[in-house]
Amino acid sequence: MAAMLILALDVMDETKAMEIAEVTARHIQGIKVNYPLVLSCGIEIIEELSGVKPVIADFKIADIPYTSALIADLAFSHGASGIIVHGFAGSDTVSEVKRVADEYSGEVYTVTELSSRGGEEFMSRHAYEIVEIAKRAGVDGLIAPATRAERIREIRRRARNLKILCPGVIAQGGSVEEAIKSGADGIIVGRAIYSSSDPEREAERISRLVQTFLKKYK
Amino acid sequence: MAAMLILALDVMDETKAMEIAEVTARHIQGIKVNYPLVLSCGIEIIEELSGVKPVIADFKIADIPYTSALIADLAFSHGASGIIVHGFAGSDTVSEVKRVADEYSGEVYTVTELSSRGGEEFMSRHAYEIVEIAKRAGVDGLIAPATRAERIREIRRRARNLKILCPGVIAQGGSVEEAIKSGADGIIVGRAIYSSSDPEREAERISRLVQTFLKKYK
Repeated sequence: MAAMLILALDVMDETKAMEIAEVTARHIQGIKVNYPLVLSCGIEIIEELSGVKPVIADFKIADIPYTSALIADLAFSHGASGIIVHGFAGSDTVSEVKRVADEYSGEVYTVTELSSRGGEEFMSRHAYEIVEIAKRAGVDGLIAPATRAERIREIRRRARNLKILCPGVIAQGGSVEEAIKSGADGIIVGRAIYSSSDPEREAERISRLVQTFLKKYK
Repeated sequence: MAAMLILALDVMDETKAMEIAEVTARHIQGIKVNYPLVLSCGIEIIEELSGVKPVIADFKIADIPYTSALIADLAFSHGASGIIVHGFAGSDTVSEVKRVADEYSGEVYTVTELSSRGGEEFMSRHAYEIVEIAKRAGVDGLIAPATRAERIREIRRRARNLKILCPGVIAQGGSVEEAIKSGADGIIVGRAIYSSSDPEREAERISRLVQTFLKKYK
């Protein structure tokens, strides 16, 4: 999946989820779903959404390898194109999720640190080590916080050819321009689109922004 | 929930899950469910199981506070009595999950480190800091690895009145006696029970062990 604008579809209603996915589809390159939606609607929502755009299952897997593999398998077997795993869980978990993803030709993204304040307590201190784990495991990309653009720059430098996707823009305070200037390949946007009175127009507007800055800085 | 023997019901089939829960019910004090079962059967499985024994949703929540609260709310509103959150996600996430749990008079358990090898890469280094976060947030207990009994001893010393539940015994190599001797209040057992040819007898046998050692060392 070419990384550009990913819609974080953090709603909990199936009809609303499908509606927003469909009206924004022309302007986004993928849909990120998290547990609130999947637990509310059932895992079949991934299959439904994957008929509209490739789906990344943002399950932030952080379990022992055995359980992590089962979770990844469920996501991919229900149509996910990519999955998100916590680097903090350790290299055995990341490698095991990667092994399952390979069976489905799926993508794996590793979280370096959460965009929330608590992400600085433990994860920030190990983010660069997590980048190394991600590279060794051969994953496709990293999830790094647009709320801390200076961190993206350093992660970009270390990540080599890994894609970097950044949540935390707009509603959480991060800047799309700063994130891309610092090295993001793709921007993850949730609330600014799905809570907009006109999700299609907002997706279009942000998509233009993302394209403009990718052209300017890449 | 009096912490003693918790069944980790890591099967993925609803009929099998209910069967094992029912035949082992007399010998266990709670049932821990993880995502593989919940994603396979739907979150309603928590409601069904909670009719048999109190359910701990082992969702190892490790997300930003906003999303973590939504996940916790879904678990409790579907009948969970307790939930598991990762301490490494930071104190804001742990506190937010605790806030939601309080609305349901539910319990919160914080993972100090995973029982897997990868748990030693980052989490072990911060386990004692995570104990402090858990105490400040006022959670009910900790999840600590029976695969490293020497760690339980130190966590017990620091945890004061927090309950300590230990996974990682038997199939993963940890000893029930060592875990309880080191300070565990409860033991979490999965494969040894649900993969047994006679889950009821195995649950009874392990329950007796747990009771014997709790009497001996507490």
